[in-house]
Amino acid sequence: MTQQPAIEITAYDWVPDMARGKVKDMRVRWALNEIGLPYKERLVGGAGGEKSADHLDDQPFGQVPIYKEGDLTLFESGAILLHIGEKDERLLPRDPVARGRAIAWMFAALNSVEPFLQALFLIDLRGEGQPWHGPASGALQPFAENRLQQLSAALGEREWLEDRFTLGDLLMIDVLRTTSKQQFVRAHANLAAYVERGTARPAFRSALAAQMAAFEEREPK
Amino acid sequence: MTQQPAIEITAYDWVPDMARGKVKDMRVRWALNEIGLPYKERLVGGAGGEKSADHLDDQPFGQVPIYKEGDLTLFESGAILLHIGEKDERLLPRDPVARGRAIAWMFAALNSVEPFLQALFLIDLRGEGQPWHGPASGALQPFAENRLQQLSAALGEREWLEDRFTLGDLLMIDVLRTTSKQQFVRAHANLAAYVERGTARPAFRSALAAQMAAFEEREPK
Repeated sequence: MTQQPAIEITAYDWVPDMARGKVKDMRVRWALNEIGLPYKERLVGGAGGEKSADHLDDQPFGQVPIYKEGDLTLFESGAILLHIGEKDERLLPRDPVARGRAIAWMFAALNSVEPFLQALFLIDLRGEGQPWHGPASGALQPFAENRLQQLSAALGEREWLEDRFTLGDLLMIDVLRTTSKQQFVRAHANLAAYVERGTARPAFRSALAAQMAAFEEREPK
Repeated sequence: MTQQPAIEITAYDWVPDMARGKVKDMRVRWALNEIGLPYKERLVGGAGGEKSADHLDDQPFGQVPIYKEGDLTLFESGAILLHIGEKDERLLPRDPVARGRAIAWMFAALNSVEPFLQALFLIDLRGEGQPWHGPASGALQPFAENRLQQLSAALGEREWLEDRFTLGDLLMIDVLRTTSKQQFVRAHANLAAYVERGTARPAFRSALAAQMAAFEEREPK
């Protein structure tokens, strides 16, 4: 008898082409693959649609991924990654200083880098073709560019943000690779190379294949 | 001989009036006060100014707080809070499920709520008096309003986001109380009351007094 995986993650069964490979269950699949932990997936109605009451009970903002393991139901990809990281020092070092630094970079990805890129994405999403689009985007660009400049300076010539690959890198690379403002990343050769290194990892490649496969199953033949 | 506190936090010695009481060392002071841990403060040149190379070594984005304890130098208030939370179950429950939920709310505050409010703040900051200001702000408001609506629904009639006060509440309340869009918080009676409950805690009141005192020391007499 084959044992069922103890971990379940929830993903969308459909998203528009522009979002494929970028939905936030990617980072959770990637982390689980890095340490060889199997999981089952539960697919729910696509992004943007009405969410069921059950979904909102598990995820107050109606998003994915939701992570279930025994009695634990978690939302927020950052919290899910941290929980997974506690299982294996390949993701989260056990040394207190190295652990603290890795967690600092996780929060940096989600609170010091992503929000400034996301604000520009939202302006593009709502403003395309509107007269306010150009000036609003232009006014907010320097905030995003400044954060990427600071991140590039912090990374320097190193392979990863600290001595070795951690969840801090996984999350930062996932933010950088999925932003709609790729030109801001490519403006820094070291950041572009850093994203290449991260997304070349076998655990990333198989996570990407798994997310894409879930969409393809649903496609009309 | 009095022992020096083992913990040092870095704060600004000056910020404009509108930022006083809102700088992010507040949440760290608050957490330390909740568990009665003493700290020393190191004041550095105010927000917006050039940061020293030493400051950027410790905090890649040139912000505060920086947290030092022994060999550990941490940045990102979320990471600092999590580190402090590990010291005392009053901030972070030891039960794995309750712990996971508290951490999920920490990430929710920083990645699902704050960014949408912050985008509106940045549009106000750069757009005031510009013809694009109104339409850009109007286009992004629904994202912020939607997140606060969802948060209000998740809180319901409970006192705190889960069974008891945790770092998830501390961080969510700090995000809600400091946003420039107070009208969006006040639109939900339960969120307004939640912020009141949090900021009435003695540990919050003394944190606020300590941040304000640091500014007052520097004022010209």
